[in-house]
Amino acid sequence: MNYTAQQLRTFLVNIFTKMNFPKIDAEFIAEVLVRAELRNIPSHGFERVKDYYNMWKEGRINANPEIRIVHQTPSTALIDGDKAIGMIAARFAMNLCMEKAENVGSAWISVRNSNHFSIAGYYAMMALEKDMIGITMTNANPFVAPTYSLDRLLGTNPIAIAVPAGEEPPFVMDMATTPIARGKISILEKKGLSVPEGFVQDAKGQITTDATAIKNGGAIRPLGGDPEHASHKGYCLGAAVDILSAVLSGAQYGPFVPPCVGFLPVLNQGDGIGTGHIFGAMRVDAFQPKAEFKKRMDGWINTFRNAKVVEGQERVLIPGDIEREWEALYTKEGVSLLPQVLANSNEVAGELGLPLL
Amino acid sequence: MNYTAQQLRTFLVNIFTKMNFPKIDAEFIAEVLVRAELRNIPSHGFERVKDYYNMWKEGRINANPEIRIVHQTPSTALIDGDKAIGMIAARFAMNLCMEKAENVGSAWISVRNSNHFSIAGYYAMMALEKDMIGITMTNANPFVAPTYSLDRLLGTNPIAIAVPAGEEPPFVMDMATTPIARGKISILEKKGLSVPEGFVQDAKGQITTDATAIKNGGAIRPLGGDPEHASHKGYCLGAAVDILSAVLSGAQYGPFVPPCVGFLPVLNQGDGIGTGHIFGAMRVDAFQPKAEFKKRMDGWINTFRNAKVVEGQERVLIPGDIEREWEALYTKEGVSLLPQVLANSNEVAGELGLPLL
Repeated sequence: MNYTAQQLRTFLVNIFTKMNFPKIDAEFIAEVLVRAELRNIPSHGFERVKDYYNMWKEGRINANPEIRIVHQTPSTALIDGDKAIGMIAARFAMNLCMEKAENVGSAWISVRNSNHFSIAGYYAMMALEKDMIGITMTNANPFVAPTYSLDRLLGTNPIAIAVPAGEEPPFVMDMATTPIARGKISILEKKGLSVPEGFVQDAKGQITTDATAIKNGGAIRPLGGDPEHASHKGYCLGAAVDILSAVLSGAQYGPFVPPCVGFLPVLNQGDGIGTGHIFGAMRVDAFQPKAEFKKRMDGWINTFRNAKVVEGQERVLIPGDIEREWEALYTKEGVSLLPQVLANSNEVAGELGLPLL
Repeated sequence: MNYTAQQLRTFLVNIFTKMNFPKIDAEFIAEVLVRAELRNIPSHGFERVKDYYNMWKEGRINANPEIRIVHQTPSTALIDGDKAIGMIAARFAMNLCMEKAENVGSAWISVRNSNHFSIAGYYAMMALEKDMIGITMTNANPFVAPTYSLDRLLGTNPIAIAVPAGEEPPFVMDMATTPIARGKISILEKKGLSVPEGFVQDAKGQITTDATAIKNGGAIRPLGGDPEHASHKGYCLGAAVDILSAVLSGAQYGPFVPPCVGFLPVLNQGDGIGTGHIFGAMRVDAFQPKAEFKKRMDGWINTFRNAKVVEGQERVLIPGDIEREWEALYTKEGVSLLPQVLANSNEVAGELGLPLL
C-alpha cells in the first residue's frame, strides 16, 4: 500500500511531538524524512525512525536543545548542537551560514554535539532559494575501512553540493564517499539480497558479497572499492569529510563517532562531542552577476544532457535528475514502506500511544 | 642519471626567463614543477614543459599577464588571469584567498582565463604555513566521459585539501576525480604499458586496457570506473569541480576547456575564457583555538596511522605520507627523468639556445 506524503508527515509529526519536540521542529524533522522517502532515498527516511526514538529514550537526542554559537568570525562559526537531532542543528547552521554569506559573500559553519540529520542534500538545497551554492558534509557511524585497514575508522561521510540554474532544474549531488551507503546495505540485508562485488570486506579484510558482513566485523570499502581501482581516493574524500566535520568542530571523529544504530556500542572514547557536520554557502553573485551565472549553468546542464550515449543506455544524467523524477512520481502516487520498516515505525507509534500507519 | 633539484630548477628558470617571464615568476614556476618531480608526480612535472612552451609560442600563455580582480566581496573574488600560466594565476589567487581568510575567517577565489598549473596540492599547501586549511580545484583537458557518455566532457579535475597538524606532518590529499590521472596514462603509453582494467573506455564506450585509446577517441572513466561500482559518484565530483572552477568564474567548462596537450585541437567553442580554478582557505582559529585544533588533528592522524592492517599489507597511510616520503628521498638522491621527457625538455632548451640537461 502507498501512503501520501501528507499521511507520512502527520504520522511523524505526531511521533516527534509526543517525544516533546516543539511542533515547529517536529514538522521540520517530518519534512526532511518524508523528502528522503519522496526522493527515493529510503535509507535516510522511515528506516531511521526507530533508531532516533531509541536514542531519544537513552537521552542521546535532546528534543529541546539550546543550540549556541561557540565562536564566530564574519564568514565562519562553530556551533554546539546541545545533542539536537541532526535536522534541527543543521537547519540552525545552514540558516546562519546563508546569513553570513549574504553579508560577506561566502561562509562555513562547523557543528559539533549533533546527531544523524537524514539526507545531506536537503540542507545544501536550502541555499538554492537564495541563489547560493550550498555545501553539506557530515561524518557518520564508523563502518568504513580505509585502504589496507582492518579497522572501521570512517563513516560513509557524504558530500552534497547544490548549484542553482536558470530555466533548468538545479544541479544537486548528494553522495556517500563509499560505493554504497550503509543504510542501503541494511535494506539489502532486510530484503535478503547480497551486496555487489567490491563494496564490502569481511572481518579479515577480504572482499565479500554477504550483506550481513557489516554486522559481523566486516567493513564497507571506500569509493573505488579496491586499491587497484583507487580506493585510496575514496579514503581521502571520506577522511577530508571527517576532518572538516569533526576535527574542526570538536565533534567525535573517525572510529569514535557515536553510532546511531542499535547494534553498535557507544564507545565513550575520543575527546570530541557527538556527531559533526559542516555547511558551506557562497552567493553566486559574489562572483558573477546572477543572471549571467544562471545562463552559464543552464548551458553547462544542456551540454551534458545532450551528450552522445553508450549503446544500450538512454541518457547522460545530471546530478539530481533521478531524485527529482522520483519525487515527482512519489508525490503523485504515494510512497510504499518496506514491511519491516513499517513494523518498526508502528512499534514506535504504539509505544507512544499514537495511531498506527 | 639523477638530477639534483637545483639542477632541474636552474634548467627551468633558464627556459622560462628566456620565454620572457619575469625572473621571480620563472623561479616560482620552476619551484612548482620541481616540487611535482620531487613528490613523484612526474605527470605534472617536466612532462609538461614542451606543452607549456608550445602554448606560449602559439600565444596561448602570456608571460607578462596583467592579472586583475574582476569582482570581489570580503570573502570572495573573481580573478581574470589574462592568459597567465596556471602557477602564476594560482599564486596570485591563493595569496588573495589567504589575505581575505585572514580578515574574515574564510574565503573562495574563482579564476578564469588561466592555464594548466601543475599540482593542485602545491597551492592548497601554501595555506599550511598560515595555519589555514587550503583547498584547490581546477578543470582540465576534456578526457573523461561521464557515466553512460560516449563524449568526453570533463577533465580529470583534481581536488586538493591540505590541513595543518601539530607534531605530525600535515594531511595533504591531492587527487584526480578519476581512478587515474591523464598524465599518468600518457606515461604508461610512453613506457609501452597497458592501463589497468576499468579505467579507460574505447571509442565505442567499451572498457579497454589500451593506453593509446585516449588518443583514438576513447575516454577516461570517472572514479568508481563502471556504473556498478558507482562511477556516477566520480562523475558527480568531477562535475562539481568543473562547475566551481569554470561556471562560477566564466572560464571554459566541460568539453570546451582549451586543451594543454598538442594532440587535441583548440575548439573555439563555448562562451568562457581559458581554464578555470577555484581556491579556498579557512583559518583553523576561525573555528577553534589553534593549539586545540592541532592537538586534535595529531590525534586524528595517530588514530588512523595505528589502525590494524589487512594481512600482507604494511600500514594504513595518511594522505600526503607517500608524497612526503618520496620528496625526502628524491631531495637526497636526485630525480631521474624518462628518456622521452628529457628529450622533449632538451628540445625546448635547444630551440631557445640554452644549455641542455
